[in-house]
Amino acid sequence: MYRSHTCGELNLTNNGTEVTLSGWVQKARALGGMTFVDLRDRYGITQLVFNMESDAALCERANKLGREFVIQAKGKVAERSSKNLNIPTGEIEILVSEFTVLSESETPPFIIENETDGSEELRLKYRYLDIRRPKLRDTLIMRAQINKAVREYLDNKDFIEIETPNLIKSTPEGARDFLVPSRLVNGAFYALPQSPQILKQLLMVAGMDRYYQIVRCFRDEDFRGDRQPEFTQVDCEMSFVHQDDIFDTFGGLIQYVFKKVLNHDLPALQRLKYDDAIRLYGSDKPDLRFDCKIVELNALLPKSEFGVFNTQIENGGLVAGLNAKGCAAYTRKQLDELTEFVKASHRGLGGLVNIKFNEDGSVKSSIDKFFTEEQLREIGKAFDAQKGDLLLIAADKISKVRKSLGDLRLDLAKRNNWIDEKSWSVLWIVDFPLFEKGEESGEITFAHHPFCSPHPEDLQYFDTDPTRVRAQTYDMVMNGNEILSGSIRIHQKDIQERVFNNLGLTPEDREKKFGFMLNAFKYGAPPHGGCAFGMDRLVMLMSGGDTIRDVIAYPKTSGGRDLMMDAPTAVDEKQLKELGIKVVG
Amino acid sequence: MYRSHTCGELNLTNNGTEVTLSGWVQKARALGGMTFVDLRDRYGITQLVFNMESDAALCERANKLGREFVIQAKGKVAERSSKNLNIPTGEIEILVSEFTVLSESETPPFIIENETDGSEELRLKYRYLDIRRPKLRDTLIMRAQINKAVREYLDNKDFIEIETPNLIKSTPEGARDFLVPSRLVNGAFYALPQSPQILKQLLMVAGMDRYYQIVRCFRDEDFRGDRQPEFTQVDCEMSFVHQDDIFDTFGGLIQYVFKKVLNHDLPALQRLKYDDAIRLYGSDKPDLRFDCKIVELNALLPKSEFGVFNTQIENGGLVAGLNAKGCAAYTRKQLDELTEFVKASHRGLGGLVNIKFNEDGSVKSSIDKFFTEEQLREIGKAFDAQKGDLLLIAADKISKVRKSLGDLRLDLAKRNNWIDEKSWSVLWIVDFPLFEKGEESGEITFAHHPFCSPHPEDLQYFDTDPTRVRAQTYDMVMNGNEILSGSIRIHQKDIQERVFNNLGLTPEDREKKFGFMLNAFKYGAPPHGGCAFGMDRLVMLMSGGDTIRDVIAYPKTSGGRDLMMDAPTAVDEKQLKELGIKVVG
Repeated sequence: MYRSHTCGELNLTNNGTEVTLSGWVQKARALGGMTFVDLRDRYGITQLVFNMESDAALCERANKLGREFVIQAKGKVAERSSKNLNIPTGEIEILVSEFTVLSESETPPFIIENETDGSEELRLKYRYLDIRRPKLRDTLIMRAQINKAVREYLDNKDFIEIETPNLIKSTPEGARDFLVPSRLVNGAFYALPQSPQILKQLLMVAGMDRYYQIVRCFRDEDFRGDRQPEFTQVDCEMSFVHQDDIFDTFGGLIQYVFKKVLNHDLPALQRLKYDDAIRLYGSDKPDLRFDCKIVELNALLPKSEFGVFNTQIENGGLVAGLNAKGCAAYTRKQLDELTEFVKASHRGLGGLVNIKFNEDGSVKSSIDKFFTEEQLREIGKAFDAQKGDLLLIAADKISKVRKSLGDLRLDLAKRNNWIDEKSWSVLWIVDFPLFEKGEESGEITFAHHPFCSPHPEDLQYFDTDPTRVRAQTYDMVMNGNEILSGSIRIHQKDIQERVFNNLGLTPEDREKKFGFMLNAFKYGAPPHGGCAFGMDRLVMLMSGGDTIRDVIAYPKTSGGRDLMMDAPTAVDEKQLKELGIKVVG
Repeated sequence: MYRSHTCGELNLTNNGTEVTLSGWVQKARALGGMTFVDLRDRYGITQLVFNMESDAALCERANKLGREFVIQAKGKVAERSSKNLNIPTGEIEILVSEFTVLSESETPPFIIENETDGSEELRLKYRYLDIRRPKLRDTLIMRAQINKAVREYLDNKDFIEIETPNLIKSTPEGARDFLVPSRLVNGAFYALPQSPQILKQLLMVAGMDRYYQIVRCFRDEDFRGDRQPEFTQVDCEMSFVHQDDIFDTFGGLIQYVFKKVLNHDLPALQRLKYDDAIRLYGSDKPDLRFDCKIVELNALLPKSEFGVFNTQIENGGLVAGLNAKGCAAYTRKQLDELTEFVKASHRGLGGLVNIKFNEDGSVKSSIDKFFTEEQLREIGKAFDAQKGDLLLIAADKISKVRKSLGDLRLDLAKRNNWIDEKSWSVLWIVDFPLFEKGEESGEITFAHHPFCSPHPEDLQYFDTDPTRVRAQTYDMVMNGNEILSGSIRIHQKDIQERVFNNLGLTPEDREKKFGFMLNAFKYGAPPHGGCAFGMDRLVMLMSGGDTIRDVIAYPKTSGGRDLMMDAPTAVDEKQLKELGIKVVG
């Protein structure tokens, strides 16, 4: 080794020891005949000291060290006169007797500290320098710790890690596949897996009983927002289980990971029905770190001449609102911002009614004309409105009101700092619908994928009222983000048939799309179910990052480019010729 | 859960307990008013019993159970009258009071036992049934155990698991890349990684210090023999290390894995120089589970008129042989087989000289005409020949003799069962040459890859005698198979320049081929080195499998096909159009 110790481990107990350290020069400064060098490695920073009096030549060489030079230094551990108690090595320094430059460095293109002057583009190009910043380094280390904790837990529960292939068959389902041309079978293509869904279900048919894999998946989607073309999931499947077993197992997993990695005791996960989540929070991934539920008013509204409410109620719409606690003093400008927020095209409300319960005890509303103060106070009771509270009420189609108020709820939380950043909201969303009806087409489609098992007690609605059939499908939601999705799968041929019938799939479709899987199910399929964690998002949340890119060593831009390697690129004609393909257009 | 216990855990201590088991019907047989069902799951087999006398209806239903039906059975644990002490559950049986068929099964296309009647093609097509065979199941379980042991060891040594991307840049080096057309950048391609070599070296530049990953790699080679287009390696890299640190770390790893998984104490790994391996065993991956070294005779041969020897020695060739211990009684036919073996086109010897040291004390040779018995006995001394031994001697170009005798050595071991299948030969091969000279072209090429560091003490030969320069490159060899390869990398710009000069690379070549990596090395590269284990082969050896396919859940055929999924396949024109490519020819 080029070192006897790392730069993160020496302290006063090592006082007087001869040591050898290696690392990068974080900074060097000459000060009254002394030169101080902060030497950095993955484990920490240790101060090196050079003294003009004791060795002028060595000290002068040290003065020539630039940032990010790699050096090996020998010397004796000594107690510092001016201590830095913020770092573990802050009570000692190394009196250097000898050092070697292992590698010089040009001036880096940006400052290698958490607070950097580099743009994201520049940092992605020089990712190997970006990773030297403690924030990114620590995130990658935490990612490894999370992987480790996940595996420990699952190994202890008799899960077997099994690798599934990356060169598989392209299926017309779901998102767009990345394709890989085959050279040996010209004109044919492999696909990169969007997930090992079918392969893991076949492992259950194969009797492997409990499977997991921390696995790369690929989706050739348009990279809206924070998506990556390749991403990682913790993929799991269990045989002979009911939904409750899944909740216990994977609720336990997330508790274990939080304890191991963050030393945080996460309480047992609550379950919230999909219908309730939508009704109360306007979202199937509600953030419960704060309350502020949607209150539905259709049944509570006093009679009035207010046409907006009356029309919606008559037409099957919804009147509902939120209590923005403590916001009664919002200015006209602030209220206008909230109105603009809900009027944005993807929300599409016409506006918001407000009722202010002022600190002075008075009640003011944008619908004073239609409601008496008495009536407004009556409405306020439904929201448990107190002095200082602001009620915001919308009336429109049910889904529009819920979605808009759900978004508004989050917006209010941000504006008012309602969220304690140290708190965690982790819960199960359960009882998703099995089928969805297209809003325009009225066509029945599956809400998740066609192998999700219906609730046995809902089979009675299968033919008469299919959208009423609940699926044994579940999500885990963390701080308002979906971090896991899964289901109990269908293992009975007759139920699978009925699902396909409802989806209007012909026997030919079935064979083409799911043939090899259906074939496997002829040979004794056990009841089974599973889930997949979105690992990138989980790590992002646990590490407090802002984007998925923060938790990936070498991420791609939103355009799918790797700026460091400069990929994708044109390739030699010879390569394409061997594959029997040609670039067109 | 559909079970209270698995089919592998019940024994006499559970006697009298009410249990619920779920699993597959291995076999069912009716016998004098009783029906016995072997119920199988991943954990074992438990015998279920049904009794006509106590419940005729239930027993009759049980008689209808077919092989591979999935059932759930409830009943009481009872002591068996006729015990099977070969399995952990063999002292008990379950007196079934109730059972449910969870899933029926058609007759499987082959017998689901270790000794099966299914061809490999059939078994690959129905891989989910093949995996139900205990042999394949146990191999996949052992694979997971090996992964776990590897990670435990490396985690404890401060290695960080870091994921590298699968969609990277195509480079013209090495084997052929699999390409992935980019839809967002039409006409551009990603490549699937042949290994994360450059990416892991950049993690060292990034200061991550110790990295590992159990990672999928891809090579679009012609699938000779036992190759898979996708394979798994344990990929590792360390900073601030010398070769000895690598030997300690990864020798320790393999010892740890053997202890954990096989409970076998592997001794510390010996190191054998590449030159010695080639000289003594005719191979850079010698199997040392048996001895039988090559003995070189050039300096020892008595003067004779035997032209074959004399010519080769005069022309710089080699005369060398093996002692086939105990084979003096080989028949003419057997000797002819050995001769044919070394005459095969890829070995290309003209023949073999034999000297038999017969049990009766006589010496017989195919070159009796040219050598006296005295001289033959003298030659025998070099081989430590005893009564009953057979010497086999070749004379040809050095490389041809070594390769042929190396192969012959293995062939003899197989013929004579010299190998104790329970023994292990694991060792380091070290001091590989840095450069190779093309036999025909005389051109200098790198033996491993151009980032391998030369031995510092050999830099003196760099310009004058480059093939004499040893690289800090090493392989780990297990039972005659290379299971690890690695090197200390070059981290100094000037040495990298000299290597490139020797390879005749122009500055343009360098930039195009290795640009982003060389750029990274400008910003403070630490000394570093690493290696990669071939995981599939390691698992194959440890599990006693015959082919790589045995240790992969869903392998491909030698033609690169997945017979279960039927991949690769043609895809929709629409998909190709979006990618801007077209199938030609």
